[in-house]
Amino acid sequence: MKFNVAANLTYEIQAPTTLILNIHAARSTHQAVLQETFNVEPYFKTEELLNAQNQNRYIRFEVTEPQTVSISYKALIDTSFKKTNIDILTDVPVMELDPTILPFLAPSRYCQSDKLYRFANSKFGKISNAFEKVLALTNWIYENVEYLSGSTNSETSAFDTVTEQAGVCRDFAHLGIALCRTLSIPARYFTGYSYLLSPPDFHACFEAYLGKEWVLFDATKLVPLNGMVKIATGRDAADTAIGTTFGQVLCTRITTSCELAADKFRPFYYNSKNPRGLTYL
Amino acid sequence: MKFNVAANLTYEIQAPTTLILNIHAARSTHQAVLQETFNVEPYFKTEELLNAQNQNRYIRFEVTEPQTVSISYKALIDTSFKKTNIDILTDVPVMELDPTILPFLAPSRYCQSDKLYRFANSKFGKISNAFEKVLALTNWIYENVEYLSGSTNSETSAFDTVTEQAGVCRDFAHLGIALCRTLSIPARYFTGYSYLLSPPDFHACFEAYLGKEWVLFDATKLVPLNGMVKIATGRDAADTAIGTTFGQVLCTRITTSCELAADKFRPFYYNSKNPRGLTYL
Amino acid sequence: MKFNVAANLTYEIQAPTTLILNIHAARSTHQAVLQETFNVEPYFKTEELLNAQNQNRYIRFEVTEPQTVSISYKALIDTSFKKTNIDILTDVPVMELDPTILPFLAPSRYCQSDKLYRFANSKFGKISNAFEKVLALTNWIYENVEYLSGSTNSETSAFDTVTEQAGVCRDFAHLGIALCRTLSIPARYFTGYSYLLSPPDFHACFEAYLGKEWVLFDATKLVPLNGMVKIATGRDAADTAIGTTFGQVLCTRITTSCELAADKFRPFYYNSKNPRGLTYL
Amino acid sequence: MKFNVAANLTYEIQAPTTLILNIHAARSTHQAVLQETFNVEPYFKTEELLNAQNQNRYIRFEVTEPQTVSISYKALIDTSFKKTNIDILTDVPVMELDPTILPFLAPSRYCQSDKLYRFANSKFGKISNAFEKVLALTNWIYENVEYLSGSTNSETSAFDTVTEQAGVCRDFAHLGIALCRTLSIPARYFTGYSYLLSPPDFHACFEAYLGKEWVLFDATKLVPLNGMVKIATGRDAADTAIGTTFGQVLCTRITTSCELAADKFRPFYYNSKNPRGLTYL
Repeated sequence: MKFNVAANLTYEIQAPTTLILNIHAARSTHQAVLQETFNVEPYFKTEELLNAQNQNRYIRFEVTEPQTVSISYKALIDTSFKKTNIDILTDVPVMELDPTILPFLAPSRYCQSDKLYRFANSKFGKISNAFEKVLALTNWIYENVEYLSGSTNSETSAFDTVTEQAGVCRDFAHLGIALCRTLSIPARYFTGYSYLLSPPDFHACFEAYLGKEWVLFDATKLVPLNGMVKIATGRDAADTAIGTTFGQVLCTRITTSCELAADKFRPFYYNSKNPRGLTYL
Repeated sequence: MKFNVAANLTYEIQAPTTLILNIHAARSTHQAVLQETFNVEPYFKTEELLNAQNQNRYIRFEVTEPQTVSISYKALIDTSFKKTNIDILTDVPVMELDPTILPFLAPSRYCQSDKLYRFANSKFGKISNAFEKVLALTNWIYENVEYLSGSTNSETSAFDTVTEQAGVCRDFAHLGIALCRTLSIPARYFTGYSYLLSPPDFHACFEAYLGKEWVLFDATKLVPLNGMVKIATGRDAADTAIGTTFGQVLCTRITTSCELAADKFRPFYYNSKNPRGLTYL
Repeated sequence: MKFNVAANLTYEIQAPTTLILNIHAARSTHQAVLQETFNVEPYFKTEELLNAQNQNRYIRFEVTEPQTVSISYKALIDTSFKKTNIDILTDVPVMELDPTILPFLAPSRYCQSDKLYRFANSKFGKISNAFEKVLALTNWIYENVEYLSGSTNSETSAFDTVTEQAGVCRDFAHLGIALCRTLSIPARYFTGYSYLLSPPDFHACFEAYLGKEWVLFDATKLVPLNGMVKIATGRDAADTAIGTTFGQVLCTRITTSCELAADKFRPFYYNSKNPRGLTYL
Repeated sequence: MKFNVAANLTYEIQAPTTLILNIHAARSTHQAVLQETFNVEPYFKTEELLNAQNQNRYIRFEVTEPQTVSISYKALIDTSFKKTNIDILTDVPVMELDPTILPFLAPSRYCQSDKLYRFANSKFGKISNAFEKVLALTNWIYENVEYLSGSTNSETSAFDTVTEQAGVCRDFAHLGIALCRTLSIPARYFTGYSYLLSPPDFHACFEAYLGKEWVLFDATKLVPLNGMVKIATGRDAADTAIGTTFGQVLCTRITTSCELAADKFRPFYYNSKNPRGLTYL
């Protein structure tokens, strides 16, 4: 599936600042970056960092004088994904998990899986198929948490959301991840460009490790699962911030777009008939 | 109903300490204290304080030298209660609440009703009869929170319990109160001696203000509702501590008992057939 | 000292709503209400409730149809206060506290004094004079917490503020109260109209119970202590909200004013030379 | 420096359980494992996993039947370390940080650096030398937090400790890490065997990334810095648990020892004269 994606960010630099951006589409065997333009206005020397572990691509640069800096990113991306029958998507016993997967079982800043033991087990512990278990918790979040812009902030965590029951995509993802980990299913945060998201914005959802694949889940149900262009994965939002700044700076604008470039698009959502799990790589 | 109640507490005083105890059975038109003995060993001059608002009876005294202090309380209590048909136990509109009741609608230390708005309304908001609403939330607590000695501490609050789903009678009561207040039903904490509680201990449950009466609810379902001897009511455990100490001191023993002194006892629990609400005064 | 005070509030009623306002100046032996006008536009029958315990004056009314409701309050107030030498403002031993004062030693929703034991004692425990102790903690708050509009919300508590170190008058007061109670000094929340506050707004500070008087402290140091017109006191902001609403409603405007009506005004702040404590009643 | 280290753990397995242990001394250019014995009684097939990123060595095995399992580990370790003059231990600008270091700037489960901005900057922001900055915050923790066994639990985080001011080595380390990250200094958790720790136990402290080296700090000041045998490093305790269990199991015994095997030992602590930073690798 081909998508044209774009992002524009404006920063008001007030004092010397280092910026680390994570807005580049990931490159992987399942996601080809066909064309790509990245621009900082005015010009600054930028450096691309690749996190070898998770394919996240960071741009780092420094602005030493107060000024307005505009960043634009544009790319043509070709994504592919796989749909797997759910009988294959069983949970992987901890005995068989690769050591690189183990960190995604541990609690993290926004996903305090250690505090949700009884809640997760009483609600979802008895579902035997692992895919259905994650689907059930995704549905629970969808049904019990209200999507409400501005209802949360950068400190809101899964532990808060389970009771406050309101949030944005980030909060939905954090709660999904925390519940998976509590149930001994590795889970990670996923950020991307998202086709058909309205209003357009960066999107966040999560992946659960099932049948030795990272299967995508989105508790917001705002967009089809097959319209994602992956930017980054990590333990939670602390690992995958769109922009991290060290200095004194204000982000005054974020706009994104994600348009179909070619092909027909048949939206794919999980449903109970013919259940299959979708994976990017 | 006549009950013999008793409590024995031992404090190891390590430095000058003021103690405030709240272990005396309340005196009210519905609860007569027929006989009563209170003893501190060794002797200290004690003072009884009555909180005019809520009938709570406090004993206050001071120990200036390090030593072991033993407190014993024994009383013969005659309680009466009323059972009211639930069609009368409607919620009282805020417009009609007496000003003395209003504080029991506000959040308190352990009952952060301000943080449970979505949770309470999505789960119980649609139940029209107020008694049934409180019964439903009581049942939800009973079914979802595990009674587990030692699982919580003196800082645990209703906000924690809704997610951690384990606790003791105090935590069950705090969550019940918080949910009621979120739903605009005044609620208060209730401590007492409790017949048939095993192992014997002070007990805590809560009252909701319905049909202009304080109706008793116990989300632990450990004991019959008609076996309570009331000690105190308050906004939450912060108002009704069995013992509050100012100084350096260790409480090394708490034992209680509550035995039937006369009459036959027919245990009363809420049930869906012939539903009536039980009130002490 | 005579002040003209005024408040104007606008509510957009979206569904049937009961409102309880607490904007009337308190009447006491130290604060005379010389003239007073209260108006709701359009007209609604309102009821004045007096909380006998704390002299707080509530207005309660109901709006059953969606509409805009404007409230205006205007009063001419004559306040008096007392300045007491600090050698008299010793802390009152718990043994001598009147039972009506005891609740102000207990933790409350926004003042979790039970969680600040080591913090308060290590910082202020060694100061012997009680007034100086409260002054020291007030100064600590002033020096360590940044006054920053919009940095906190209605759920922020003293426990948060001690670490987050930013807030508004409400947060400054909550932390002051929590620290006092941890140090066994009763403390309560105080709301009022405040002369010379810029921009004009309702103000919140706190009172500590010293020498059997409620002595005023303001950790924001934004205004002189002798320019307050008292509205309400309570355990914390949960007891003294300007407006509490039950229904569906948006508060779209709050304006206040507090002007000197007569007399000369000599601003009074605490200072180390000639230290005296100021009390209203 | 040569040390004999040992650890004995007993687990009561109650239902099928997978165990992941992290008690093996790390192997690095600065820490040679000269001899090593690992034993599980009764015998189970165990698997050693190496985390390539951080050299942590995990043992994983599965117990399918209820039983008592005893684990013993014994090793002879030769450690070396480096002392660096503090004028070299400047902070590394974010612009120069290797991408593998960046995760140690982000908040993690127990180190919510995002919530300590004002606290850290007001207290330590003005110290210019980075080593002295970390030393100052280490001293602040040492002076303000009481070392108190049993005062915290597995959910306690840096945000709690800054106010509660009591904890064990784990809590001291978490707070040190959180403060460093808030100040843009990468920091990580360090677990090890520790010479002269009394009573003997696993120890935890932290490393700050200064002058492109991981310099060791220990806010507990319980042991000399040069008596550590490193087991693991990670973002916080969530990454470096001694034992992680998946199943139903009780850890009933943990004993450790760390004895000098050869050489003379001259205890090294940081001090203001001749200040140098100590690094393991």
